[in-house]
Amino acid sequence: MNLPGDFLQRCRSLLGDANVISEPERLKVYECDALSAYRCLPLLVVLPETVPQVQALLKLCSEFQVQVVARGAGTGLAGGALPVTGGIILGLSKMHRILDIDPINRTARLQPGVRNLAISEAAKPYGLYYAPDPSSQIACSIGGNIAENSGGVHCLKYGLTVHNVLQIKLVTMAGELLTLGGGGLDAPGYDMLALTIGSEGLLGVVVEISVRLLPLQTQTQVILAAFAGIAAAGAAVAAIIAAGLIPAGLELMDNAAIRATEAFVNAGYPIDAAAILLCELDGVPEQVAADSERAIALLQDHGATEIRLAQDEPERKRFWAGRKAAFPAVGRIASDYYCMDGTIPRKHLAAVLDNITRLALDYQLGVVNVFHAGDGNLHPLILYDGAKPGDFDRAESLGGKILELCLAFGGTITGEHGVGIEKLGQMCQQFQAAELQQFLRLKLAFDPHGLLNPGKAIPTLHRCAELGQMHVHQGRLPHPELERY
Amino acid sequence: MNLPGDFLQRCRSLLGDANVISEPERLKVYECDALSAYRCLPLLVVLPETVPQVQALLKLCSEFQVQVVARGAGTGLAGGALPVTGGIILGLSKMHRILDIDPINRTARLQPGVRNLAISEAAKPYGLYYAPDPSSQIACSIGGNIAENSGGVHCLKYGLTVHNVLQIKLVTMAGELLTLGGGGLDAPGYDMLALTIGSEGLLGVVVEISVRLLPLQTQTQVILAAFAGIAAAGAAVAAIIAAGLIPAGLELMDNAAIRATEAFVNAGYPIDAAAILLCELDGVPEQVAADSERAIALLQDHGATEIRLAQDEPERKRFWAGRKAAFPAVGRIASDYYCMDGTIPRKHLAAVLDNITRLALDYQLGVVNVFHAGDGNLHPLILYDGAKPGDFDRAESLGGKILELCLAFGGTITGEHGVGIEKLGQMCQQFQAAELQQFLRLKLAFDPHGLLNPGKAIPTLHRCAELGQMHVHQGRLPHPELERY
Repeated sequence: MNLPGDFLQRCRSLLGDANVISEPERLKVYECDALSAYRCLPLLVVLPETVPQVQALLKLCSEFQVQVVARGAGTGLAGGALPVTGGIILGLSKMHRILDIDPINRTARLQPGVRNLAISEAAKPYGLYYAPDPSSQIACSIGGNIAENSGGVHCLKYGLTVHNVLQIKLVTMAGELLTLGGGGLDAPGYDMLALTIGSEGLLGVVVEISVRLLPLQTQTQVILAAFAGIAAAGAAVAAIIAAGLIPAGLELMDNAAIRATEAFVNAGYPIDAAAILLCELDGVPEQVAADSERAIALLQDHGATEIRLAQDEPERKRFWAGRKAAFPAVGRIASDYYCMDGTIPRKHLAAVLDNITRLALDYQLGVVNVFHAGDGNLHPLILYDGAKPGDFDRAESLGGKILELCLAFGGTITGEHGVGIEKLGQMCQQFQAAELQQFLRLKLAFDPHGLLNPGKAIPTLHRCAELGQMHVHQGRLPHPELERY
Repeated sequence: MNLPGDFLQRCRSLLGDANVISEPERLKVYECDALSAYRCLPLLVVLPETVPQVQALLKLCSEFQVQVVARGAGTGLAGGALPVTGGIILGLSKMHRILDIDPINRTARLQPGVRNLAISEAAKPYGLYYAPDPSSQIACSIGGNIAENSGGVHCLKYGLTVHNVLQIKLVTMAGELLTLGGGGLDAPGYDMLALTIGSEGLLGVVVEISVRLLPLQTQTQVILAAFAGIAAAGAAVAAIIAAGLIPAGLELMDNAAIRATEAFVNAGYPIDAAAILLCELDGVPEQVAADSERAIALLQDHGATEIRLAQDEPERKRFWAGRKAAFPAVGRIASDYYCMDGTIPRKHLAAVLDNITRLALDYQLGVVNVFHAGDGNLHPLILYDGAKPGDFDRAESLGGKILELCLAFGGTITGEHGVGIEKLGQMCQQFQAAELQQFLRLKLAFDPHGLLNPGKAIPTLHRCAELGQMHVHQGRLPHPELERY
């Protein structure tokens, strides 16, 4: 496929030659995001530096009916930034300035390419930080965080991206610049701010973001608790939340995860435990002391075989070091791993983990569990060997089964990674035709020609029918007018 | 105007005669909501009792192209449930059952007609409550709370309706039943749950709601602080929030409000104070004690002339009694009052209140201020005499000026009451044409014939042009296709 007419020329005169990439060897950098099993070479990569450039580019794409995929740092795990055949990539990496830090109103105004961690670094001199902290926070961008409504270890207490963003500026495919949200708790009109957050780049391109900053906590405490069985650890999680405690983080690692990380970073974890919990509590010292006492009592009541309270800052950091190194540690014991992301009601933690173990045996693949237990957000890492023919397909198939398991237990198919290209099939299971159609109508209200990140996040009903998931009556799907894209 | 064809007959056979009201004297009950200055007799009132009945009714309205306005308890202050000429009212008052209280997951499943306060009453035996508490909570319904994204005294700490609702079931004009949201922190697909909350009944009819319940606080403390000037009280509010304290409630009353309530309920307020603040702190006893100490220091630093800490539960209740009786107390000193609702950045509290006083003098109308200072949500009560010709028009005009003042200081035209019919003109000022057009496109994605609560919440560009607020080029507005409704 080729770009139409003088599209390339027009891009160059808009952005300057340096910001337009068309050489195949340089395009290769953009052929995938962190779900690297899927690859597709874009026809072109454009790297705007200003808001008017983004507006002009999207207008141009509309004029030439060129499909366009916006890309932040490319750290997404569900293929949301995968290029589409015959389409271009609009990279936001050159719009990476922190426009303003306002310590009085506790807000920061950012360009979309600003790295997540850079926000907290810039806010630190004022005693402030930005709460959502996805594992990729060193690299991932705030624009990408908005696309996927990113969470992190601390979202249990401090919320997802949607709970920490006050305002965004969005460019539509028509090139219009919309200001959504504002400083107040509520705004009149429909809540297009929340609608856009987590929309995986299908509704518009975010070009400016205002986020809420929080005061750095005066005190933080971490408790490490070991358990002889996963079920007991799961019950302890449910009990802590049911007691009204809201830990800043509440993470679970199973034995495979404990062994892998211990061999890698020597965090001092008990390697014989079936599972450990890491429970972080923060706030004013009195509150932290009171909460710690209650949490320890609950952990004991639920059969913790060992409980350690971090005695100082270095020990607290060591407790976390294992959790933070868990993914690379797993990378050392398997040539490849596939990270899944599903959410279940906390009370079913033990039953779901049990079923995952059984499924893994069926598929003869290893699975390591390390995840955000407090909000029931699972991250099973499926181990496979990418060099072995058929191994990834088996891993992907097992991943799909795990998501279906989450649904069967009343959960959802994503906690924080999004649907992207990865979970389109499971979307057909999570939603009825009526909801999928309404999603598609919403999309058309923003992007009537379906040019923005097509084929991601929301499956068409035809796609669901192909997957055998959708009721087809006399060869016809309901609402064929929504099937164009 | 008359109802088309056999529409009335079909409604009767769907619902039974008892649930269809067509006699003019009984229709009169539904001719307005709590913005009673606007009235319009509906052609018909239907009172469904089941979800399938709501689906069938909306399908019927679509078939006959009959406009329909959903109505909860009719306590809305912006005319959102005002009937439209030639349209019908779909009343949800007969769907008033609490379907389920789940103390383990801390959720309640409700029909839309359940009264706000009834939720907390039903949850109390489990030590739980529902946080959003609009002043009308004895009467208002959870369905109406969703339409307006209602707040209340405690939304500063516990959020608006949108922060406390987990899932809703929505019937579209096509009669389709959509399930939006779920138990998890995040859900795949577009966030249609947040989109629907606060959409003022324009996108669909909510027929079932699942809300989050919170544990009743172990301790609550209230501080009353008096100030010799409004500016000092405003500065104290800003300082408390800037210090990182999040009071459960932080309310301001000016001298007129203090005098009116004191004469009515004898709450023991200092009647010579220019303003008082009521600051409520809640949580575990250690946290409440620590927070109270910090709050008192800040109030002193900012010139409080008197500070009282409630010594026991009866005194705490007495402190709040005045605030809660403020609206009826104002009703005793003026034959009528018009309650406005705008939000401003906290730091501009004093300047905005100053400007409101000046405007009130210009209009020769009294204004009483009693409001949610912590989140900058003003509720100026404009005093007028409905029997005096032109007095309400002057009050309405002053109200509009106050909203424009909020905008000028970087605020918004509503905090928690919604736009309804009342603030359409100010919507033209708060938003640009591009955003208003996107609102209209969104509406059409749910309700392509514009039958649901037409003429509310979102002004057409023509309406804005009539009001002199929109740029018209050579007699043409942009996007005439969006002007149908």
